[in-house]
Amino acid sequence: MPSVTGTSSPPRRRLGPEERRAQLVQLGLDLIKARPFDQVLVDEVIEAAGISKGLLFHYFPTKRAFQVAVIEAAAAELLEAVRPDPALDVLEQLRHGLDAYVAYIEQQPASYTAIVRGAGSDTALLQVFEDTRDAIVDLVLAGITAEPSPLLRLAVRGWIAGVEESTILWLRDRECSRDAVIVLFYREALALLPLIEEMEGDD
Amino acid sequence: MPSVTGTSSPPRRRLGPEERRAQLVQLGLDLIKARPFDQVLVDEVIEAAGISKGLLFHYFPTKRAFQVAVIEAAAAELLEAVRPDPALDVLEQLRHGLDAYVAYIEQQPASYTAIVRGAGSDTALLQVFEDTRDAIVDLVLAGITAEPSPLLRLAVRGWIAGVEESTILWLRDRECSRDAVIVLFYREALALLPLIEEMEGDD
Repeated sequence: MPSVTGTSSPPRRRLGPEERRAQLVQLGLDLIKARPFDQVLVDEVIEAAGISKGLLFHYFPTKRAFQVAVIEAAAAELLEAVRPDPALDVLEQLRHGLDAYVAYIEQQPASYTAIVRGAGSDTALLQVFEDTRDAIVDLVLAGITAEPSPLLRLAVRGWIAGVEESTILWLRDRECSRDAVIVLFYREALALLPLIEEMEGDD
Repeated sequence: MPSVTGTSSPPRRRLGPEERRAQLVQLGLDLIKARPFDQVLVDEVIEAAGISKGLLFHYFPTKRAFQVAVIEAAAAELLEAVRPDPALDVLEQLRHGLDAYVAYIEQQPASYTAIVRGAGSDTALLQVFEDTRDAIVDLVLAGITAEPSPLLRLAVRGWIAGVEESTILWLRDRECSRDAVIVLFYREALALLPLIEEMEGDD
C-alpha cells in the first residue's frame, strides 16, 4: 500500500496510528495557513507525509472527514491562543484575548474567511464553527459574570461576530492600523456592559 | 417542450421572456421563505410555474444560476425594506431600518441563515452577499456622515454582522423579547459613534 515517495519528500517513517493521524492533521494545519482550506489538496498532504492516498483514506474515509479534523484542530488552536491568563486582570485578559484572536486570523486570512463564509455548506463544518463560536462567547462571559442573561449572551455573540467581520475587512483593505482595530473592539466590549445593565435595569 | 401540468398547478399562461424570468424568480423567492434556499428543488419551481425543466434551463443555464438570481432578488427586497424614509429623522430611520432588517430575517430564518453561513461555497453567491452587506453599510453611513473614515466603516460593518448574528441566534432560541433585541442593536449603534469620535480625536 505505501507509495514510492518523490525525492523531495521526507523519508517515510513508521508511525503508530495516533501519531500518524496527528501528523496528517498537523500537515493540514500547516497547509491551510498558506491557502484557503478548501483548496488544500489531498495529494499535497500525502506527498508531504510520504504516504499513499490509501493510507490517508484509512484514517479519514473522505476528503471532507479530513477537512473537518483539520478545522477541529484549528479551532482548538484558536481557543488555546485566546484562553485568558488568570494572572491578568479582566481588562488585560480582554485586551490579550483580542490581540490573540486578531493574530490568529492574520496568520491565515484566506482559510479563516473561507471557513467563516463557507461553513454552512456542510453540517459537520457548521457544527465545528458554531461550537467554536459558543466556546469563545463562554470564555468572554466567564470574565464578566457567572450568570449571563440571554440578552448579554446575544450581545456578546454579536460582538464576536462583529470583531471577526471587521478583522476580515481590515485584513483585506488594511486602511486602519492594527492598534486602532484592537482598541475599537476593546472599547466596544466595554461599552456593551453598561448598555445591557441599563436595559435590564429598565424592566 | 411545455410539460403537462398537474391538476393542482395553475393554468399555464403564455408569458414574454422578461415576464417569465420575473415569474420564476418570484416563485424562487416564495419558496425560500418556506425552506433553506439550497433545499429548494428545481422540480418545485417548474411545477409551480407550469413549465418544463427545459424552459427553466433556457432562462437559467444551471441550478446555481437560478439560485444566484433568486438571492439577488432577495437582496434587492431586503435593501428596499431597510431603505430609510427621508421624512423621518436619523434616529427614527435607524430604528425603522433595524425593525425592517429583523423582520426580513424573521420571514425566512432558514434561508437567511443558509445564505449567511454558506455564501462562501460559491463565488457568485459570495459576491451578492458582500455587495449587499456593503450596500447596507453605505445606507447606515449615509445617515451619519458624508465622509466616513475607514475606522467608522469597519465599525459599522462589524456592527451589522453582529446584528445579523444576534438575530439568527435570537430566532433560534427566542430567549429575549423582540423589542429588547432591537433596542440592543439601536443602542449599540448610538454607542459606536462617540466611541469612534473619541478614538479619532485621540490621534
